[in-house]
Amino acid sequence: MMTKKANLPGKAEASDKAVGRLVLYRKRLAGIPEDARRFIYSHEIGELCGVTSTQVRRDLMLVGSSGNPNRGYERRDLAQSIDEFLFEQRRQKVILVGVGNLGRAVLAYVSRRSPLLVIVAAFDSDPAKTGRVIMGYRCHAMTELGDLVDSQAIPTGILSVPVAAAQEVADRLVAAGIRGILNFAPVTLRVPHTVYVEDIDLAMALEKVAFFARHGRHVERMHV
Amino acid sequence: MMTKKANLPGKAEASDKAVGRLVLYRKRLAGIPEDARRFIYSHEIGELCGVTSTQVRRDLMLVGSSGNPNRGYERRDLAQSIDEFLFEQRRQKVILVGVGNLGRAVLAYVSRRSPLLVIVAAFDSDPAKTGRVIMGYRCHAMTELGDLVDSQAIPTGILSVPVAAAQEVADRLVAAGIRGILNFAPVTLRVPHTVYVEDIDLAMALEKVAFFARHGRHVERMHV
Repeated sequence: MMTKKANLPGKAEASDKAVGRLVLYRKRLAGIPEDARRFIYSHEIGELCGVTSTQVRRDLMLVGSSGNPNRGYERRDLAQSIDEFLFEQRRQKVILVGVGNLGRAVLAYVSRRSPLLVIVAAFDSDPAKTGRVIMGYRCHAMTELGDLVDSQAIPTGILSVPVAAAQEVADRLVAAGIRGILNFAPVTLRVPHTVYVEDIDLAMALEKVAFFARHGRHVERMHV
Repeated sequence: MMTKKANLPGKAEASDKAVGRLVLYRKRLAGIPEDARRFIYSHEIGELCGVTSTQVRRDLMLVGSSGNPNRGYERRDLAQSIDEFLFEQRRQKVILVGVGNLGRAVLAYVSRRSPLLVIVAAFDSDPAKTGRVIMGYRCHAMTELGDLVDSQAIPTGILSVPVAAAQEVADRLVAAGIRGILNFAPVTLRVPHTVYVEDIDLAMALEKVAFFARHGRHVERMHV
């Protein structure tokens, strides 16, 4: 059995890396077959994720879960605690700007993978795309962005525009009230202190793989 | 002036994270305008990358660079040392498997961003794609994969196939001699110890952004 704390002191202090690991634990727990053992030990979670068992236990304290020393964590209960911590069991609205190849890939991908994250609109500056439904999402003109984000109080935006447009679009997102940006453009966005930016740089990731491929060596991976 | 060691002891021991940071330093150095100061201090690099100056200096020892305490690192020289460490100034061949939206985005992106990483072929199981030139790359049938990777001794593969196909394709890549895989499929690939896998999970990255967007808080970001 796990004990759940009445309130979670961790949320305000959770670090970037801790949240990254919680997202990973969640993913790995979801990947365990339904008919597997009902309980899981911290060292087992650690092995699945390339993290020490001490780190796992510390992170899971954040979500208010402490495993039973003999049996470990009840898997389903733990997954729920993490979900609650990360999403508060609410659906969260997201917009995407830039419906090129990458934008389309993200639209197709996120809707399948994260049911609690709902892309409510896509935007593009190309008049040939606006007004159309692309990958199941209506593509709006950039001029509609401010009103839509503001009226629906959307906190999160995905930026999949070319480098040259990235900063300007980021400025518009921030002005509209967006508080978190997933940025695929290989530039450092200048945003206010209160806005969280996560960069995914495909070229950088490939450069890293190329290095280790050449040196033929396996190392622990850090996901996200 | 920097001193360069005759041989670089670091390459064999470079950790996943250290290589990730070197890739980031390289990117940030490239982003500095040509007409900026010729030298840069470790603390300036650290600020650009969200890393402590001590960490920067330790990482740069790996590439054989130690800055001058008064003037710092000569920017161009440093960038070259990192390039040499990461790529040995050789072009490195890469293949891509899975020419869907994501694959196309990667094809378009990598060729522009990493001139030392050369995608030599794309593969797809869809007969409607094979034989065609897509985003400037010839798309081959999966049956040609083994011979092409083997004959050209290609070390690195990009996996942008659907989840259901990912493990099977990874097995084929490994059997053909691939030593490093950039994997976009949200599964943990089972590969031999000697093969390096880097996962990019778009949904996980977005979940993290959504968390911080809701909590409206800026934290240091880790890139890659």
